[in-house]
Amino acid sequence: MRKIEHIGIAVKNLKESNNLFEKLLGVSAYKEEEVESEGVKTLFFMNGPNKIELLEATKPDSPIAKFLEKKGEGIHHIAFDVEDILAEIDRLKNEGFIVLNETPKKGADNKLVAFLHPKGTNGVLIELCQEIK
Amino acid sequence: MRKIEHIGIAVKNLKESNNLFEKLLGVSAYKEEEVESEGVKTLFFMNGPNKIELLEATKPDSPIAKFLEKKGEGIHHIAFDVEDILAEIDRLKNEGFIVLNETPKKGADNKLVAFLHPKGTNGVLIELCQEIK
Repeated sequence: MRKIEHIGIAVKNLKESNNLFEKLLGVSAYKEEEVESEGVKTLFFMNGPNKIELLEATKPDSPIAKFLEKKGEGIHHIAFDVEDILAEIDRLKNEGFIVLNETPKKGADNKLVAFLHPKGTNGVLIELCQEIK
Repeated sequence: MRKIEHIGIAVKNLKESNNLFEKLLGVSAYKEEEVESEGVKTLFFMNGPNKIELLEATKPDSPIAKFLEKKGEGIHHIAFDVEDILAEIDRLKNEGFIVLNETPKKGADNKLVAFLHPKGTNGVLIELCQEIK
C-alpha cells in the first residue's frame, strides 16, 4: 500500500463529467479506455502523484450500472498502488480481509487488480493495483 | 489541486476501525483529533504522499452522524491539497462550482478547509485544504 493510485467515481455521462472534472482539476484527461469484461468505459486524470478515474457503464447489468441504480453518482472505490499484488493478497487474507479476486485480473490503465469486499472494510470498496511491466 | 491530501471515511466505531485500517495500510495512525465544532473525532494514517482520515460522530446531529444514518459507513469525502485556498475558491466559483464555505474554516490536522457541494460534482463531496503555516 504505497499510495492512493486512484479514486474511482461512478458517473452517468462520461462526456459531461469529463468537462466537469477538467474544470475541477485544471487538467485534461490523459486516457480513455473501455474495459469490455467489466462493462465500463473509463477516463483518467492525473492529479500530482494520484489519479481520478471516471467510470460509465456500457451494459445495464455491469457493476457500475448496478451501483448507479442503487446509490447514484459518487465515489465507487479507492485503489491503492502495491508493489507485489500476490504478496499483498496473501498478507490481507491472513489479516482476515475478504479478497474478491485471489487471482488478480487485468484492469484499466495497464494494471493487475484485485478487490477487497467492502463488508470487511467499513463499507469501502478497495482495489489493489500493480503496474504491469 | 496538487494531489489527494486525504480520503475521509465515515465509521461507527473509531477504535474498531483503527485496528482494521492499521492492518490494511500496515501503519499505525499518526494523529487522533477531535473537531468539536463539527461534532467529529478523527484519526489520520499516512499512506505515501496521501492520508486516510477516519471520522466518528461525537454528536447525534453532526454531519457524520447524519451521513451514517442515511448511507452507512463508507467514503465521505475527497480532500485535495491546494496551495492558495482563497484563489482556488475564486477559480472554482467562476467555473460554476457551488462553494459551501466562501470563507475557509479551520479543519483537522492543521488545515484551512472549504467544501464544494456534491450536487455540482457528480455526487462527490470535495474538500479543498491548505496547510496552515
